[in-house]
Amino acid sequence: MTEAFDVVDLIRTKRGGGVLAPAEIDWVIDAYTRGVVADEQMSALAMAIFLRGMGRDEISRWTTAMIASGSRMDFSGLSRPTSDKHSTGGVGDKITLPLAPLVAVFDVAVPQLSGRGLGHTGGTLDKLEAIPGWRADLDNDAILRQLEDVGAVICAAGTGLAPADKKLYALRDTTGTVEAIPLIASSIMSKKIAEGTDSLVLDVKVGSGAFMKDLDAARELARTMVALGSDAGVRTTALLTDMSTPLGLTAGNALEVRESVEVLAGGGPEDVVELTVALAREMLDAAGRTDADPRAALADGRAMDVWRRMISAQGGDPDAALPTARETETLTAQADGVVDRLDAYAVGVCAWRLGAGRARQGDAVQAGAGVELHVKPGDTVRAGQPLLTMHTDTPERFDRARQALEGGIDVGAGDGQVGGDVVLEKIAG
Amino acid sequence: MTEAFDVVDLIRTKRGGGVLAPAEIDWVIDAYTRGVVADEQMSALAMAIFLRGMGRDEISRWTTAMIASGSRMDFSGLSRPTSDKHSTGGVGDKITLPLAPLVAVFDVAVPQLSGRGLGHTGGTLDKLEAIPGWRADLDNDAILRQLEDVGAVICAAGTGLAPADKKLYALRDTTGTVEAIPLIASSIMSKKIAEGTDSLVLDVKVGSGAFMKDLDAARELARTMVALGSDAGVRTTALLTDMSTPLGLTAGNALEVRESVEVLAGGGPEDVVELTVALAREMLDAAGRTDADPRAALADGRAMDVWRRMISAQGGDPDAALPTARETETLTAQADGVVDRLDAYAVGVCAWRLGAGRARQGDAVQAGAGVELHVKPGDTVRAGQPLLTMHTDTPERFDRARQALEGGIDVGAGDGQVGGDVVLEKIAG
Repeated sequence: MTEAFDVVDLIRTKRGGGVLAPAEIDWVIDAYTRGVVADEQMSALAMAIFLRGMGRDEISRWTTAMIASGSRMDFSGLSRPTSDKHSTGGVGDKITLPLAPLVAVFDVAVPQLSGRGLGHTGGTLDKLEAIPGWRADLDNDAILRQLEDVGAVICAAGTGLAPADKKLYALRDTTGTVEAIPLIASSIMSKKIAEGTDSLVLDVKVGSGAFMKDLDAARELARTMVALGSDAGVRTTALLTDMSTPLGLTAGNALEVRESVEVLAGGGPEDVVELTVALAREMLDAAGRTDADPRAALADGRAMDVWRRMISAQGGDPDAALPTARETETLTAQADGVVDRLDAYAVGVCAWRLGAGRARQGDAVQAGAGVELHVKPGDTVRAGQPLLTMHTDTPERFDRARQALEGGIDVGAGDGQVGGDVVLEKIAG
Repeated sequence: MTEAFDVVDLIRTKRGGGVLAPAEIDWVIDAYTRGVVADEQMSALAMAIFLRGMGRDEISRWTTAMIASGSRMDFSGLSRPTSDKHSTGGVGDKITLPLAPLVAVFDVAVPQLSGRGLGHTGGTLDKLEAIPGWRADLDNDAILRQLEDVGAVICAAGTGLAPADKKLYALRDTTGTVEAIPLIASSIMSKKIAEGTDSLVLDVKVGSGAFMKDLDAARELARTMVALGSDAGVRTTALLTDMSTPLGLTAGNALEVRESVEVLAGGGPEDVVELTVALAREMLDAAGRTDADPRAALADGRAMDVWRRMISAQGGDPDAALPTARETETLTAQADGVVDRLDAYAVGVCAWRLGAGRARQGDAVQAGAGVELHVKPGDTVRAGQPLLTMHTDTPERFDRARQALEGGIDVGAGDGQVGGDVVLEKIAG
């Protein structure tokens, strides 16, 4: 035994509500990465953290230790500042697609290293892979070259960043220890800080379709992450944004690309535009581009130009027709009334069941599958009017997809959900 | 997936302070035994149970499910009632050795299925294995025959009893989830109930040398176990007994056998005799032998007769010389005074380091190693008078063994520990 600590002592400390020392945290993350601390020991510690919490200093050290478990990206050689965005995930959240090229218009480099979706909120890479020819995997040199030439890159995160987080995240997923704010915050921030950006804007979703169902929890998560970013020297702000109803009118891969292109063409649903512009504003401010006018860059085609170059640089054809699903089924209103509720979670699960998402890592997704909304909360409808259309290549999925919507859509007297502001609150460092 | 439940749902329920349903408990214990629930999932659940607790019904069901994971002993064919004793473990706790033959004197069958010691409290089988020729391993037929012929058997517990507990206990040991009362109680009681006894007396130790350091926790553990026994139809009582100082004057394998034989010969230290008789009284009462006089059976040699037959039946020679350690070292008082403290934990660790115990499962123990006390708390001593003698075959262990005693022995003004009653409290069903 040449190990500096005994993991059972650390588990007991946290179990009793105590504070882990910096050297203990460094050791346990390193020992877990090396396999000296076993999965069953780390899951017991994770549960103790879940129920006992961690202080600000502990979370910060935990994050630093996870970063130190792997390599870091280095964008310091670029001629322009970098700014990054992370969303905690929502239904119809295609914002990264118009946002990255939009911010790049103003000479800010936007490296968006993403994962694939698991569950009802969809993944950015899955969406872009609906574009014929587009490739998610780039090596570090290609990322740097594209950031210099185009200004924006959306690609798969390398495996070398925060491997401790990768291992711990997979463990938490199967051991009921996902929803702990210290563990969520350190997981997100270890990856983002390892990506080496100068500034970071966090889109923390709140509502039925989000990980965080209520505002207080979302606010605590946002504050924790903003503090972690500041501790690491990354200018970090967070927007708390509404995820009680889907963003825009689409949830699904090709469907969301189509809607993103509409936004880049100066149109698109107002909530998507509003959130894209709000996040762009934060990223541009953090990068010192306080005079930039992102809404103008959507209207005059500059953002679309960067989009086209960004897609082409990764082998995609921005002019190719997007895949469509083989079958559709449209749901209509049973009676006259007002759309009182169009629940984000219900729509997300519906799209997921139609084939837009995967049940297990490694599963394939259907590019054309998903949900297309024809109405939003607050809209007045007539009996028989289309509410939404389900798309899939595998029509045997319609039944279970339709079941996901039960209780998720109300047409009534107009006293329910109304479309308010997407951005609820800002948390600054 | 044909499993009835998802373990992550159960972990979440317990994590949130909820109650696990009977079917959920049955499933999770069975699925863990089958390997469908992984170690890292069970350890997360164990930590959630540790921090959130379990209600009486949950603990009872958990215990029943662990019993159902394996086979049960059946003593119903015996011509006499059975009574069993379990101790939570203490330093110098050799009580099983005189107790089993003593109770058997009165036509009660005493099946004492034991484990080996790990840590500072020693194991009953390790002690008896100091007797030349004695064998711990008996099959079920041999156990039944010996119970019918001799009345008492002390042997190794079969591997078929409560295998879920065996697996869970090993997991808890490495994941910081040992000290949870629901898990301790269900672990002990699942094995004891599976052993099929009619009645059971629990010796729950309290104090520095025991698992439970304070009376409140010991009382809660005792009450929980008594309730579990009653739920399972086993007449169960518990004595809370003092473990702040070692029981008797010896801690070590052959040393404790020697002291046990002294008790069986009508002598021995009064605390050992007192506890042996008190536990015998409870076992005899539970078996309906309310008129039996255990103290008389120690004095007149009847208990010794059963002891000799019990040892012989398992291949041991009751007349053989017991092994002695090759080296001894005696510690003496530095000054005149009164023994204010002779700490059970310190003496236990000292004996363990001398070779009486094992660091890892499967290690060998030294039959002759241990600690022999020459004084007890409250005794007046003179400078230079022997306090205790350390015994070992490996004298290089003396230094570390002596270090274990630092702070564990005080000779002072007589205002410290005093030898009070061994039995502190009784908990009846």
